Amino acid sequence: MTHIEISEVGPRDGLQSIQPIMPTEAKKAWIAAEYSAGVREIEVGSFVPAHVLPQLADTADVVAYARTLPGLTVAVLVPNARGAEAAIAAGAHKITIPLSVSETHSLRNVRRTHEQMLEEVRHISRLIREMDPGRRPRFEGGLSTAFGCTLEGDVPEAKVLHLAEQLMAAGCDEVGLSDTTGYANPAQVKRLLRRTREVVGSEACTGVHLHNTRGLGLANALAALEEGVTTLDSSLGGIGGCPFAPGASGNIVTEDLAFMLDAMGFETGIDLEGLMKVREIVQRALPGVELYGFTPEAGLPKH
Amino acid sequence: MTHIEISEVGPRDGLQSIQPIMPTEAKKAWIAAEYSAGVREIEVGSFVPAHVLPQLADTADVVAYARTLPGLTVAVLVPNARGAEAAIAAGAHKITIPLSVSETHSLRNVRRTHEQMLEEVRHISRLIREMDPGRRPRFEGGLSTAFGCTLEGDVPEAKVLHLAEQLMAAGCDEVGLSDTTGYANPAQVKRLLRRTREVVGSEACTGVHLHNTRGLGLANALAALEEGVTTLDSSLGGIGGCPFAPGASGNIVTEDLAFMLDAMGFETGIDLEGLMKVREIVQRALPGVELYGFTPEAGLPKH
Repeated sequence: MTHIEISEVGPRDGLQSIQPIMPTEAKKAWIAAEYSAGVREIEVGSFVPAHVLPQLADTADVVAYARTLPGLTVAVLVPNARGAEAAIAAGAHKITIPLSVSETHSLRNVRRTHEQMLEEVRHISRLIREMDPGRRPRFEGGLSTAFGCTLEGDVPEAKVLHLAEQLMAAGCDEVGLSDTTGYANPAQVKRLLRRTREVVGSEACTGVHLHNTRGLGLANALAALEEGVTTLDSSLGGIGGCPFAPGASGNIVTEDLAFMLDAMGFETGIDLEGLMKVREIVQRALPGVELYGFTPEAGLPKH
Repeated sequence: MTHIEISEVGPRDGLQSIQPIMPTEAKKAWIAAEYSAGVREIEVGSFVPAHVLPQLADTADVVAYARTLPGLTVAVLVPNARGAEAAIAAGAHKITIPLSVSETHSLRNVRRTHEQMLEEVRHISRLIREMDPGRRPRFEGGLSTAFGCTLEGDVPEAKVLHLAEQLMAAGCDEVGLSDTTGYANPAQVKRLLRRTREVVGSEACTGVHLHNTRGLGLANALAALEEGVTTLDSSLGGIGGCPFAPGASGNIVTEDLAFMLDAMGFETGIDLEGLMKVREIVQRALPGVELYGFTPEAGLPKH
């Protein structure tokens, strides 16, 4: 059986997109519960200034806790080198920096041009290379708005490929394609993944970050699987999106994705019934926030 | 560009699953609006006794109206030969009879065993063969619960293949696989379609009826497209399901499917903005009934 890694991004992408601030203890309980259900990669937060995203101000605490769970890959997002320094100090296992292919979105999201972001990437790469090899985090460049932008519209594929090459040249270990805006379709996912993997090598492009904004999330995930992707981002209850790309909401629902992969015979290591129970913890900590998901509502099929 | 036919089943599968009875004039307005948006196959009703499904008691009227729209394939469902006689008298272009692979579901849905249903199929086939060749409707056997049953659980694939053969031997022009219960996954859709098409011939198995009960509807549709299917059933606003299979709700949303196909470069003949406007007509005629769909909520992508 092929192993597919579900990378839970709810504690970062989910929580940054909603108003309520989840208490640190609730975040830990969420992470612990998903870990217990078998999830082995969780993006637990983002090292951004607290005034920008107060929801994630406790990321260092959360990383410290998540690191106590054996075998869990503790991932974080950073917008720049200063964030990466904090992530390294906290001991994150995986650091992702977003580079939005739409420069308009990049300026809106992190207030930096492509060249300024690539300079941050080079800076972070130097920080990581200075570390003891055994302690270096994996460093990913996340190509956001790779499938289109709510601000710029169509995004040329040549631009995605060019920036993928530049991220690798600037020192990333890998690049990921992000459908920040929910514009992707399965044919595009296949084509762009194939072309990106041709450019950077398939071992340097193993994951995608897809949204379900127009209901195509799982179809796009299937397309990505067919191209050989082995890590799929998703969010418990589908919470999340991007607060700086208007209309871009709705991560893939972890529960539905895990059900699909399990039903197809992929090995995820996740216990579906255990995963469904995590919803209660999240819902209790976020009263009034709507959780999505078809499988939790319909229940698992009868066998 | 490959043409993919979206077969709108809302006026049948949708309306039979909800309590309110849509007035005949509203059904006609719905059908006219979808026709105007470019939809060219619509399942407009079911010839069942009015006391069983009062929502569809006006099917003959609706068929007569739909036949006035040039180039529209007017499809209906019939549970038995008596229904087929009415469908033929009304002038339906396509008649589908469901044969539930789960005999428990068949007994619950149409109160007949497999053998009794096959006898109905033979009877209908004789009726059609007696007609003037130019006026004969296309006759489809719909294999419901082909991917699993909420009552019986797993459904053996060998049973699906055997019944597919028997439907063809009994006189059907084609067979269709139906995920009545929303149990299907993409790997299963591919495998079962491939095997069924090997048994009956690919020209005799060109369509699938998928549900979105567990959120996998469009992923399953993608899998079906990759196996060469050219007709996909869906329901405007995703209304529908099966009132006799508990927990089986949620057709694929026509709007999301049309968006996906269009974005992938398939030719559907459907104007997406026109299609979105049909929702208003349906919503006005069904106040209080929830319409689903991600694309209508998020809007079409910016280009």
